[in-house]
Amino acid sequence: MHTTVETTQPNVVNGINVDDLVALRARVEQDASKGKTTWRVTTTWQGQTRSRAEVSGFGIGGEEVPRRFSFDIDEPYELGGGNAFANPQEYLIAALNACMTVGYVAQCAIRGITLTQLEIETEGEIDLRGFLGIDPTVPPGYESLSYTVRIKGDGTEAQFAEIHKAVMATSPNVYNVANAVALKPTLVVE
Amino acid sequence: MHTTVETTQPNVVNGINVDDLVALRARVEQDASKGKTTWRVTTTWQGQTRSRAEVSGFGIGGEEVPRRFSFDIDEPYELGGGNAFANPQEYLIAALNACMTVGYVAQCAIRGITLTQLEIETEGEIDLRGFLGIDPTVPPGYESLSYTVRIKGDGTEAQFAEIHKAVMATSPNVYNVANAVALKPTLVVE
Repeated sequence: MHTTVETTQPNVVNGINVDDLVALRARVEQDASKGKTTWRVTTTWQGQTRSRAEVSGFGIGGEEVPRRFSFDIDEPYELGGGNAFANPQEYLIAALNACMTVGYVAQCAIRGITLTQLEIETEGEIDLRGFLGIDPTVPPGYESLSYTVRIKGDGTEAQFAEIHKAVMATSPNVYNVANAVALKPTLVVE
Repeated sequence: MHTTVETTQPNVVNGINVDDLVALRARVEQDASKGKTTWRVTTTWQGQTRSRAEVSGFGIGGEEVPRRFSFDIDEPYELGGGNAFANPQEYLIAALNACMTVGYVAQCAIRGITLTQLEIETEGEIDLRGFLGIDPTVPPGYESLSYTVRIKGDGTEAQFAEIHKAVMATSPNVYNVANAVALKPTLVVE
């Protein structure tokens, strides 16, 4: 007598469990409330130009998931800081790059394309006349950000071009940087 | 005979050398090219949803200043990641908070206001139907970010309100998030 033991191998491409990703997509497609996520960071001043960002969790589908992370940000000496950590403008670029990285990796995974290399280099200019309040007509931030994506894997040129288009259209931080996000401040003087 | 020894004490408020800040402002006011800064981050994929951001320096006034920083970004388990680090949406908020923190601290310093506490808590929602490509009409990122600034120091309510207005108008990352930054991609398939 022969017995066939079925082993269910998860479909993992680029380290991404594609079955889980497809299942998440199906859940959110069926019930949009499952795809509602909430992101929150509390920052406390640490003296001079230093700050500490603390994450205590995030919300997904109406549930709060506890997660604890903490990281520090500073300014270079040339801008009055202690140069102990990367600065806010670099963290913003890193957040953009990281989000696009997830996009390329996931878009490739669902198409069964195995990546061997992915690098994104991003650069932008800031005119300090804005931050220093010298000229109110000078934008204090980036007018543009230029980036180069170097990607290598078993996809065709046409597939990578299509994936690139999909990442530009669906990456949360591409959206956040490329569009105007409304800021709603509350000032509490204690 | 009495000898007076003049000791030049730097004017430091909130850890910020105000003399240096005023001198930087004067240099940039006189020659705008001195205030031109360039920011650059290279991100490499580390497997699954993980990426590493590396800073090798920044440019100011036409000179390159070497600085080396590296930090990692991941996604939570619920979004296919290994949950080893904060995620790209949290890094973006942290970058915004850190930049505003520098703004409040510097704006207070130049007015001689000593701060004892500064905390910024920021929150936003993302609808995953955008990222998952379920509905192209759903914005993939934040439509808005709400934040609360808790500030304490020897300034008056009116001074803090004026400082808050100045930070909103001059913070580079407030600008980057609240306005549309043009993204200029180059895709290189290797």
